[in-house]
Amino acid sequence: MYATVPAIRGFGGPSVARRRAAMVGAGHTKFGVLPEGPRALVRTAVEEAFQSVDRGFERTAVDEAFVGTLGFSGWQLGNISAVVAEEAGLVGAPVTRVENACASAGFALRDGVRAIESGAADVVLVVGVEKMNDTTSSRRRYWLGVSGETEWERSAGLTFAGVYGLMASRHIAEFGTPREALAEVAVKNHAHAERNPNAQFRKAITREQVLAAPRVADPLGLLDCCPVTDGAAAIVLAGEEIAPRFTDRPVFVAGTGAGSDYLALQERPSLTSLAATRWAAASAFRRAGFDRGSISFLEVHDCFTIAELLALEDLGFAEPGKAAELTLSGATRVGGTLPVNPDGGLKAKGHPIGATGASQAYEVFLQLRHTAGARQVEGAERALTHNVGGSGASATVTLFSAA
Amino acid sequence: MYATVPAIRGFGGPSVARRRAAMVGAGHTKFGVLPEGPRALVRTAVEEAFQSVDRGFERTAVDEAFVGTLGFSGWQLGNISAVVAEEAGLVGAPVTRVENACASAGFALRDGVRAIESGAADVVLVVGVEKMNDTTSSRRRYWLGVSGETEWERSAGLTFAGVYGLMASRHIAEFGTPREALAEVAVKNHAHAERNPNAQFRKAITREQVLAAPRVADPLGLLDCCPVTDGAAAIVLAGEEIAPRFTDRPVFVAGTGAGSDYLALQERPSLTSLAATRWAAASAFRRAGFDRGSISFLEVHDCFTIAELLALEDLGFAEPGKAAELTLSGATRVGGTLPVNPDGGLKAKGHPIGATGASQAYEVFLQLRHTAGARQVEGAERALTHNVGGSGASATVTLFSAA
Repeated sequence: MYATVPAIRGFGGPSVARRRAAMVGAGHTKFGVLPEGPRALVRTAVEEAFQSVDRGFERTAVDEAFVGTLGFSGWQLGNISAVVAEEAGLVGAPVTRVENACASAGFALRDGVRAIESGAADVVLVVGVEKMNDTTSSRRRYWLGVSGETEWERSAGLTFAGVYGLMASRHIAEFGTPREALAEVAVKNHAHAERNPNAQFRKAITREQVLAAPRVADPLGLLDCCPVTDGAAAIVLAGEEIAPRFTDRPVFVAGTGAGSDYLALQERPSLTSLAATRWAAASAFRRAGFDRGSISFLEVHDCFTIAELLALEDLGFAEPGKAAELTLSGATRVGGTLPVNPDGGLKAKGHPIGATGASQAYEVFLQLRHTAGARQVEGAERALTHNVGGSGASATVTLFSAA
Repeated sequence: MYATVPAIRGFGGPSVARRRAAMVGAGHTKFGVLPEGPRALVRTAVEEAFQSVDRGFERTAVDEAFVGTLGFSGWQLGNISAVVAEEAGLVGAPVTRVENACASAGFALRDGVRAIESGAADVVLVVGVEKMNDTTSSRRRYWLGVSGETEWERSAGLTFAGVYGLMASRHIAEFGTPREALAEVAVKNHAHAERNPNAQFRKAITREQVLAAPRVADPLGLLDCCPVTDGAAAIVLAGEEIAPRFTDRPVFVAGTGAGSDYLALQERPSLTSLAATRWAAASAFRRAGFDRGSISFLEVHDCFTIAELLALEDLGFAEPGKAAELTLSGATRVGGTLPVNPDGGLKAKGHPIGATGASQAYEVFLQLRHTAGARQVEGAERALTHNVGGSGASATVTLFSAA
């Protein structure tokens, strides 16, 4: 192991000539405890993505596909990419499986964007999928745990709720973060999810309910935690000069960034900041060439309520310790100055591990085309998605622009 | 499922302007039944890769890394990318894990190349690793099997040797392929491995031994099958204009191609050809803009002896049914007109699943710099690597050039 996190590296900035990738289609299954298996989930999301393309779409246009999945649910354990090729009707085309825990689809999207930016592909399909509810409860625990650090955390019984509980405790100790702010994250995201027909929980909750819920890992209670979810989402990307063949409302990928961190909390200098998110945001903004002030809304990785506060701070939208205040002010609600997780977030929309990064991009696709219905962020022009692997060992940030 | 394999797609040809990626460093552990765990294997291969850079190398130059691994060996099961970040001393930098069964590192290399071609990264590390021998024998069976098709093959007890045994039987029935040709693949690759200090089996064998070996899955005997191997390999890639900072002997990636196929044999129109290999080769050659005649040697995916014959035919270096003749002629030996697997191939060098694609690129790095010692292919200028996932559900082909 190496003690120091290296200086930020030279991810090609906006001066490097490149061809932009654009989203031209997107599909999404319902999220929840579903009867469908993973093959059916993939097929549903992909078909919807193809059918969403304004000027029609033939699957033969797809040059290549990427799939993000943790994939420990007992279906095809290795070689999942081949299953996706079959269910998407793309047998013959390259399909690459990417696994970076809960950030799998964020990284898959990033690879898909590069395939287009490099000129290697004109049209790319990105799929995120996870089937979490088909296992026994004992296997489900195992299944979720595999992304945790094995030697020091899993072996000691530390769950993901436990890891984030430690972060929350430390954040409270360091900044005096009120529990009401954690609760408000859940309340807001449930309120947003009420307006999302694909969400797992379409039910408003109150701060009192969150605060009174049974403790899972103090200070996090049951309503501070995202649920166990089945689901899939799919995105169709095209090179910017080709996008007009498919739609006159493409959503451009302005920049992607990613970062990593030590897997075990004990190796990290801070429990109140995810360094991977900071690296990812810095490189994405550098690549996009625009600043935080121009972002209309955020999709952040709120696997636990504390994670949304950490995200606001690490992404640079709040000073360290100040996300609670921002959240309690109402700014992060749809209708506020910086809406966060208009789709309900992982907390209320649900968090099918490998699907989440693609689901966030799906929301951006709707919002930046002003087709998000009751949860539309007015005048949305630019957006950020933030997808975290495990307890912060990896993260992606992707910036999108309507023009 | 869809009955037809779609027409070949428009993977950007050589006319698409792009920045080439070049190999500037490469490292390789010994392959075999090793005492080291996966963390140590990663560290050894990466350190050797960094130290192989002619003009010196600081790890802070790395913008991003990709790791190929199947990763079912009981170590960190999810989020392996974070472990690689730690062991490579790259915490902070993005690391993406790619899993396409036995082609994991081939696809990881492809993603790394795109990161550079797109201008998103200047220097990329690609790692392939697998630890196969630390499991009990019953778990090892499971572990290897996860890349097989689950519903129709694994459940029926069909192993990978069984799958390739079916292909071999059909090839013999269709083309009259002599068993001596299968045996000659093993004999040749063992002869090559004798000259490779990293190989698992450095021992010559005879055709008689191969033909007399115990049957594993008729017509394949024990000496037709690659071994169960631990190992890792690592490649340092740089943008072509940056490569001279590191070496004046870079090895350029001229083109990458990949393809997919149905996972289950029963869905495929032919048992004597891997369609994924054909797609991959077609797109790689199209991208590279040069032809088969200019290739000095091949590194192909000979997990079983029949697989090398299939590869020669599917890659377009022999007509269907004619690879046996080519092999028996001696052409595929080092010293012949088209050396195949000068490093000993999967058969004799060993096949640590997720490492193989990177190991093949390592061999190309040595050969095209004319530093392969006793197994040097004289005057080698261009090379092809071929990496297959499972029984052909996915494949990559990468073309390299010394200039």
